[in-house]
Amino acid sequence: MLASPSHEVRELFVTGDAAEREVDLLRAAARRDVPVLLVDDRVARSLADTVHPQGVVAVVDLPRHRIDEVLRRRPRLLTVLCGVADPGNAGTVIRTADAAGSDAVVLTRGCTDPYAGKCVRAAAGSLFHLPVVTGVAPATTIDAIRDAGLSVLAATTDGELLDDVEEVLAAPTAWLFGNEAHGLDPVVAAAADRRVRVPIHGRAESLNLAAAAAVCLYASAREQRR
Amino acid sequence: MLASPSHEVRELFVTGDAAEREVDLLRAAARRDVPVLLVDDRVARSLADTVHPQGVVAVVDLPRHRIDEVLRRRPRLLTVLCGVADPGNAGTVIRTADAAGSDAVVLTRGCTDPYAGKCVRAAAGSLFHLPVVTGVAPATTIDAIRDAGLSVLAATTDGELLDDVEEVLAAPTAWLFGNEAHGLDPVVAAAADRRVRVPIHGRAESLNLAAAAAVCLYASAREQRR
Repeated sequence: MLASPSHEVRELFVTGDAAEREVDLLRAAARRDVPVLLVDDRVARSLADTVHPQGVVAVVDLPRHRIDEVLRRRPRLLTVLCGVADPGNAGTVIRTADAAGSDAVVLTRGCTDPYAGKCVRAAAGSLFHLPVVTGVAPATTIDAIRDAGLSVLAATTDGELLDDVEEVLAAPTAWLFGNEAHGLDPVVAAAADRRVRVPIHGRAESLNLAAAAAVCLYASAREQRR
Repeated sequence: MLASPSHEVRELFVTGDAAEREVDLLRAAARRDVPVLLVDDRVARSLADTVHPQGVVAVVDLPRHRIDEVLRRRPRLLTVLCGVADPGNAGTVIRTADAAGSDAVVLTRGCTDPYAGKCVRAAAGSLFHLPVVTGVAPATTIDAIRDAGLSVLAATTDGELLDDVEEVLAAPTAWLFGNEAHGLDPVVAAAADRRVRVPIHGRAESLNLAAAAAVCLYASAREQRR
């Protein structure tokens, strides 16, 4: 986290135990003139919001990214979350998007706050690796993405089969993923260029959001690198 | 659930509200002579272990499946969980395994109980679709699977790239997935025929268990159907 130029660490709070363990982290902080404050376990617990805090709390600037900046960098793979409500789900998809080589993640208005503690933890660092755009309207975002030359694919339960759109996936693509319980808003799905579904081979009714996103994003990653 | 011959429903408890809503369910229960007991909300709450129970609780026989029976049916895709501790993770992988067309799920000794409430809910019905084998030892299970003619692939973070083993995936395959925090036990991974990793294209350190399982199992599903 200290190494990322876009996420300046302002202050670091560490417990005595953590200070002994995280020698490299404290050296990096010293090199960057980041103030380090030693705190006891009680203070660490009240600063963190987990039951078992790891003894290190950083105060970090919230990054601000804009969709037009992201699109100017000619992305090849974008992940767009529309109405994803659960912070754990959002964080897991952000981590997966990073692993699959997504250039950015966009959360439309009405999604969970990506900087909620549960989302930050589920993202396992990827919030600090990828530009994350928040608070945009789905319709104008889809138009802007399409104008930038990307195909817009809506992950739905009733579209074309994922295996049948492989040649589309080789080109620059944005994936839209909807709410974990209700799926994509039909109006948003209709605004995409294609509606695509992950095949269900067994008797499950559907995949959960994070699993569906993993399958779709990795299909794109594979086709873009063939 | 009522339709599955291997999971006989013994009794059904429903609230008045649920009885009005679930007319088809009650008809199916009557056809099968399943006793239905009307209960109030307070009883439904104490029977269920969720904060917001849906007003229907079924008493069901726990299915018992054995690895030798599963292997006799000549499976083409098996999902083996080794040391998966979190019931939500196990349930999500069982749901994904079902969707990807896995013929059965095996949980080795030391895994979470697949019939824990959280696992049952995350599996979203798939526990009742797929044979689930529990309590087996990894080493003898791997031997038995190999003797039945399947390749055994260990999902690891340092094996061959998934994209490089596509021709192996076309044949009958068993995937081994390890603990969510520590991965597969190295001894278990070494006992597999191949060690395979999902490529990480971005800066994420890894995928979480459920996302990695989704990518691996769907790669198998795709290659087996080409």
